Amino acid sequence: MAGETTITVVGNLIDDPQFRVLTSGHSQAKFTVASTPRTLDRQSGEWRDGDPLFLNCTAWRDLAGHVAESLTKGTRVIVTGRLRLSRWETEEGEKRSAYGLEVDEIGPSLRFATAKVAKLSRAKGDGFVPPQAPDSNPWESTPADAKAEVPF
Amino acid sequence: MAGETTITVVGNLIDDPQFRVLTSGHSQAKFTVASTPRTLDRQSGEWRDGDPLFLNCTAWRDLAGHVAESLTKGTRVIVTGRLRLSRWETEEGEKRSAYGLEVDEIGPSLRFATAKVAKLSRAKGDGFVPPQAPDSNPWESTPADAKAEVPF
Amino acid sequence: MAGETTITVVGNLIDDPQFRVLTSGHSQAKFTVASTPRTLDRQSGEWRDGDPLFLNCTAWRDLAGHVAESLTKGTRVIVTGRLRLSRWETEEGEKRSAYGLEVDEIGPSLRFATAKVAKLSRAKGDGFVPPQAPDSNPWESTPADAKAEVPF
Amino acid sequence: MAGETTITVVGNLIDDPQFRVLTSGHSQAKFTVASTPRTLDRQSGEWRDGDPLFLNCTAWRDLAGHVAESLTKGTRVIVTGRLRLSRWETEEGEKRSAYGLEVDEIGPSLRFATAKVAKLSRAKGDGFVPPQAPDSNPWESTPADAKAEVPF
Repeated sequence: MAGETTITVVGNLIDDPQFRVLTSGHSQAKFTVASTPRTLDRQSGEWRDGDPLFLNCTAWRDLAGHVAESLTKGTRVIVTGRLRLSRWETEEGEKRSAYGLEVDEIGPSLRFATAKVAKLSRAKGDGFVPPQAPDSNPWESTPADAKAEVPF
Repeated sequence: MAGETTITVVGNLIDDPQFRVLTSGHSQAKFTVASTPRTLDRQSGEWRDGDPLFLNCTAWRDLAGHVAESLTKGTRVIVTGRLRLSRWETEEGEKRSAYGLEVDEIGPSLRFATAKVAKLSRAKGDGFVPPQAPDSNPWESTPADAKAEVPF
Repeated sequence: MAGETTITVVGNLIDDPQFRVLTSGHSQAKFTVASTPRTLDRQSGEWRDGDPLFLNCTAWRDLAGHVAESLTKGTRVIVTGRLRLSRWETEEGEKRSAYGLEVDEIGPSLRFATAKVAKLSRAKGDGFVPPQAPDSNPWESTPADAKAEVPF
Repeated sequence: MAGETTITVVGNLIDDPQFRVLTSGHSQAKFTVASTPRTLDRQSGEWRDGDPLFLNCTAWRDLAGHVAESLTKGTRVIVTGRLRLSRWETEEGEKRSAYGLEVDEIGPSLRFATAKVAKLSRAKGDGFVPPQAPDSNPWESTPADAKAEVPF
C-alpha cells in the first residue's frame, strides 16, 4: 500500500492483549493503548494529565505471538503503524465506523522499565525478508577528533 | 520546546550503546541505528535492501541506563524523538555539522523477538510525573454485538 | 502539552471548510479530510484505491480564517496536528466518542496544483511569536565541488 | 519501497528553489527548509528561538515544477517525505555523507498566509494514478443531534 497514514503512539496497554488464531490460519493480537498527554500549568509549575487518547491496535502473524508473549496490562509501549477507518452496517442497518491501528512495529518502552530481549530465529515462508543489520560501523573511518566533537 | 521536528525510526543498533555519566551528573547513552528500507523488484517479485539510513541517537537520565542495560549490538528497536542539527567549528576553523536524534522513547521491536519487561519503581525528583495507565477499559460499555463486529 | 500524539495526513477536503466565530471570540474552521491509500496489484501492475481514511479536523484563530479563505471542497492538503479522542454522553445517557485532529499546520498540496501565496502581516497579541526564517544560507561555506556532488 | 523513514517538517525556505531538467528528462527542484523550534522560558514566560534544523529537500517531476512556480525564499511550508542518507567519496578519496529529504508532498503553510490554489489537469503517463476525492460526505447519515454534539 502507498499513501497510507502512518502514526506513532506511546502509551500503556489497558488490558492484556487478546490473542487468537483465525480460521484463515493467521495469528492476530488485539489490544488498546492509552496515551495520556500532560499540560504544564504555568502558574503552579506542575504537570497535569490531559484527556487520554485510546487507540485499538491489531498485530498479525509472528508479531501477534510476540506481543501476546511479551506485553501485559499496564505495559508502556511504542507502537507505529497505519491508521485505518472501518465502516460497516449492523444487522439493524445502522451505520457504524471505528478507527484502528494496523501495527507495523511495537516494543515495550524503556522509559520506566528494562527489557530482556530474546531474538528468535526468523520464520520462513511468510514472504517477508527482514533487513539485516549492517556488520560494520560506517562511522569507523571518522577521524577520532571529529568523533570526539560530535555533540550527538 | 515547541515546533521541534519529531521522527520515528525502526532499525538495528550497529554497536552496543555507549553509556557514561557526564560531569554534570546526568547519565547519557549514545548509539547508532541503521534503518534499511526494502524495494520490491516487480520483475522478480523479490525484496531487495535499499541504502541504510544511519542515525546517531542520544538518550538521557534513567532512560539512558535502561537502554544500556537492555539493548546490544544488532537489537532491532523503535525509536521516537526529535531530529536535531548541531553545528560547530573545529580547532582549525572548519565548519562542521551533524544530525542526531534526541531520544524521547525507545523499545526493542517485537517483530523478530520477544521481551521480558521489568517495570521499575519510578525515579523521584527528576521533575517528570509519568502518566498513569487508566484502570478501566473505556470500551467496556460497548454493546457486545457491536464489539464482535468491530474489525479492529 | 507534552506527549501528544502527532499525525500527518495527506488527502482531499470532502466539503468546503465551515468557518465560524465562537461566543468566546475565537475563530474556528472545521473540515473533513479523506486520505485514500493505493494498492499495487502485482498481477495487473495497476494501482487500486483502498478504503479512504476520513478525519475531522479543527483549526483555530488566524489559521482558521486562512483555511476558510484558501481551501475548498476537493482541495488536496497536507495537515499536521494532534490526534484527539473526545468522549461525552448524549441527553439519553448514551456514551459517544469521536476522534479528531487539532490542526497545527496545513497547506494545499502542490502535487497536482500550483499556489499563489499571499503572506500576511502577522497578528499581534495572540501570545505566539513565530520563528523567523534565517537570513543566510548555512551551506554557503560548503566547497563548491562538495556541493556539486551532494545527491540531495 | 517499504520500511523507509518518513518525516514531516515545518519551516521556511532559506532560498528560492533551484529547478532544473536532468539529462534523463526528469524535472527536479532542490531547496533547503529551516525549521526553528521555540522554548518557553518559564521565568520570563517568553518564547525563545532554539537552534534551527536545516534540511535539504528534493522534489521530482510535476511536483518539482509546481514547487518552483509556487514557492520562494522565506515561504513557510509543510513538507513530508523520506529521510535518506547518501554516502560517497570525493576525488581525493575522502568519505562524505549527507542527509536529505525526498519530498512526497509539500504545500505552503496557511499559518501566516493565504493561498490561491490552481488545480492542474493531471499529467498522463507517469504511471501514477492519483486518488480521487470521494464525492459524498460519509457523515451525512449521522443523526443531526449527534453531529451537533461532536466536539470536533
